[in-house]
Amino acid sequence: MTVLSPRTHSMPVSNPFSALKNLLDASEIVTDPIPLLTDQRGRYTGSADIVLQPKSIENVQKIMRFCFEHRIPVTPQGGNTGLCGAAVPNGGVLLNLSKLNRIRNINLADNSITVDAGCILKNVQQAAEQADRFFPLSLASEGSCQIGGNIACNAGGLNVLRYGAMRDLVIGLEVVLPDGESIEHLTPLHKNTTGYDLRHLFIGSEGTLGIITGATLKLFARHQSKSTAWVGTPDIESAVHLLSLVQASFAERLISYELISDFALTLSSEFSKLSPPTQAPWHVLIELGDSLPHQNLDDILAEFLYEQGFENAVLAHSEAERMDLWILRENISASQRKLGASIKHDIALPIKHTAEFIKRCATALKTAYPEIQIVVFGHLGDGSLHYNTFLPQVLSNEVYRYEDAINTIVYNHVIDLEGTIAAEHGIGQVKNQWLPQVRSKAEIDLMRAIKAQLDPHNILNPGKLLP
Amino acid sequence: MTVLSPRTHSMPVSNPFSALKNLLDASEIVTDPIPLLTDQRGRYTGSADIVLQPKSIENVQKIMRFCFEHRIPVTPQGGNTGLCGAAVPNGGVLLNLSKLNRIRNINLADNSITVDAGCILKNVQQAAEQADRFFPLSLASEGSCQIGGNIACNAGGLNVLRYGAMRDLVIGLEVVLPDGESIEHLTPLHKNTTGYDLRHLFIGSEGTLGIITGATLKLFARHQSKSTAWVGTPDIESAVHLLSLVQASFAERLISYELISDFALTLSSEFSKLSPPTQAPWHVLIELGDSLPHQNLDDILAEFLYEQGFENAVLAHSEAERMDLWILRENISASQRKLGASIKHDIALPIKHTAEFIKRCATALKTAYPEIQIVVFGHLGDGSLHYNTFLPQVLSNEVYRYEDAINTIVYNHVIDLEGTIAAEHGIGQVKNQWLPQVRSKAEIDLMRAIKAQLDPHNILNPGKLLP
Repeated sequence: MTVLSPRTHSMPVSNPFSALKNLLDASEIVTDPIPLLTDQRGRYTGSADIVLQPKSIENVQKIMRFCFEHRIPVTPQGGNTGLCGAAVPNGGVLLNLSKLNRIRNINLADNSITVDAGCILKNVQQAAEQADRFFPLSLASEGSCQIGGNIACNAGGLNVLRYGAMRDLVIGLEVVLPDGESIEHLTPLHKNTTGYDLRHLFIGSEGTLGIITGATLKLFARHQSKSTAWVGTPDIESAVHLLSLVQASFAERLISYELISDFALTLSSEFSKLSPPTQAPWHVLIELGDSLPHQNLDDILAEFLYEQGFENAVLAHSEAERMDLWILRENISASQRKLGASIKHDIALPIKHTAEFIKRCATALKTAYPEIQIVVFGHLGDGSLHYNTFLPQVLSNEVYRYEDAINTIVYNHVIDLEGTIAAEHGIGQVKNQWLPQVRSKAEIDLMRAIKAQLDPHNILNPGKLLP
Repeated sequence: MTVLSPRTHSMPVSNPFSALKNLLDASEIVTDPIPLLTDQRGRYTGSADIVLQPKSIENVQKIMRFCFEHRIPVTPQGGNTGLCGAAVPNGGVLLNLSKLNRIRNINLADNSITVDAGCILKNVQQAAEQADRFFPLSLASEGSCQIGGNIACNAGGLNVLRYGAMRDLVIGLEVVLPDGESIEHLTPLHKNTTGYDLRHLFIGSEGTLGIITGATLKLFARHQSKSTAWVGTPDIESAVHLLSLVQASFAERLISYELISDFALTLSSEFSKLSPPTQAPWHVLIELGDSLPHQNLDDILAEFLYEQGFENAVLAHSEAERMDLWILRENISASQRKLGASIKHDIALPIKHTAEFIKRCATALKTAYPEIQIVVFGHLGDGSLHYNTFLPQVLSNEVYRYEDAINTIVYNHVIDLEGTIAAEHGIGQVKNQWLPQVRSKAEIDLMRAIKAQLDPHNILNPGKLLP
């Protein structure tokens, strides 16, 4: 792999990148690659010998065949919105999928949509809406992230409680393998038992096993009725208990179930200039949705909360009131910045262990760092938490010196309570040293063996995901 | 593998099966193995040198370590209700999981249940019900099939439209690998992105990659309201169109959407001594369910069908009427027996191609066999069809002489319209010669490579699934 050194940029005739260029149209070669070499947060900057944006599956295959033959590393990249550095290249080809961006078809009989991997998530949501359907994946970067990246990192987001993560939304995939061979199953088959399900190997593999070029995704009915409540609870255990009651009664009407600490609410309330809806140590934001109109969900939910003894509750009686409740939830991230730079964690736990985790981890952190401030909120309905820690007396640019120590405390508590250190952002190059803590040696050996089978020359996104 | 010949039963001291026995308790060695060597339909009879029913995971590991070392084939078996001969042994060890049958725990906060692989499906359904929850997998053999087998063949059944196939119901797995190593992820994590998802490799692998010993499964809210309608439609296209309309309006309230040909209804109606609810070329049975009580679904569904122009419809106004509609549907299998022995097909298609398949395949079959009778019905909501063919002038015991020829016509039409030749029963030893028609060479090569990695001596269920 000596051809990959940055020093080969001077392109002698024998330079393979020159030959690679000749396989493609000039418009598929990016002339200003700089913005694509750094991740969204500016945390990682990589290098590439060439940055390509192929316009056809055939050209993706051409690129891979060439790179396979010449042992050139290839880093696939979608919208470059990842948070773990998985799409930052380290020499070789940066293969950006942005120009494969067609909505291929919508199939109402099968409730499915087939799209190119480079489609922006927002565009897929809108295409579904135009067909009177709903595509549920929703996350902060939906205006720029791409479907291929969402699949490669098994994206989560706001609607996992009700609709599952990206893995659960994929019916079929089209993938170009490291040797340029293509595997394609885009047909919407809802029952199929014909051998090993390779689709799920590629989902969540962070571009290390194949280049996703297309996908068939599930569509759902749109919501016609909604009800939104804010409930104060005396402790986390009560919030967990209420979740269980709500799920048993409202089933899939339950779209969101968010936990907010009182400290987080205080910050957001001041920032948003909105009064706290309830006074309590912990708060829950509940949203119900229904595909039928006029479902009178407000009355049913109000009666339910009263009967179950959760009377410290406020229901939104108008769209404006509903928006205010969501503003309080969504402004937590912005409002906490006054505490300084933070060390954040993308974690999830079995829901029944959430309360114990929050208590035990806070005690441990405060013992080690008496001044530490912890902002806890998240999607309790699917067990994932935003767990943000601040050291107000440390200068912002020095906070990261504490990162390893704080991560170690937080992750050890997560692991001890059977949680995961990577809920929805993936591993990338940020957390691969932690992988052996959450996957056994047998599993990592098996992952390596699968990787070696599919990618014998280790050309696809080397250095990512696997430790 | 010469040790595996049936002639080694006489057990000299050097016989490995004798040493294997010594690793286990006497109660784990089956003394009357004959009933376990033949499949439920009596179509395949195998042989085994020894039949084991281990009572602990540790003993499953012991068995696998021993068999790995001595290159002894192992066939895993659950309730032995499979329809494709996947659990029929061909020498070596038959490893029956029936004695691993504990419900380990129910976790209401996470809406999950953790069970041993040998739990009978019905017992899992009942355990869920006792906890005021619903486990949705439901199929004809639920009184004897086991969870491990359901996972190994990715079972489908009645509720796939609403709740997905078994694959979609598995949160976590515990698996013993061919070398005796165990992989275990039974924690209910609803978001987790820590490397390749090995769980989905084992689901649907028909016991060729590992022995499933335990699983964590999803639970759901129980239904408190129901509505059931029988609708006559002028053609299949109308039935498909109505499905799309019902899904857009009723979303996950739609539990069942069954298609029944008029010929199937006539047979069942005579057999059941019940009048046909509607007069039409095709019929649809729709069932809605809701986790909330008193939802007035009958009125909403009646109004919806009227507004959409589907007036040739009957609603069940009592539980007795509802049962009568379901009896008509469920008696089709029994009622068709008067036509003689049948050649049946477990197929699924993209729903939008269902009508074209049914028409084209009937034309082809009738051209080849003018006397052929075709009984078509199935779960249109998930695209799978029961497609049963009868040759009334052929003696029952001679029907199977036509099987290959009829399968070829049916499967070629299925494949041509992007369907699958195995919707919910798997491949086993019945259909492996057909696998190369529905999976590409690249895919089968990859499956073989994964198999070789996990099971280098090919001891786990050899001869099944892969061609």
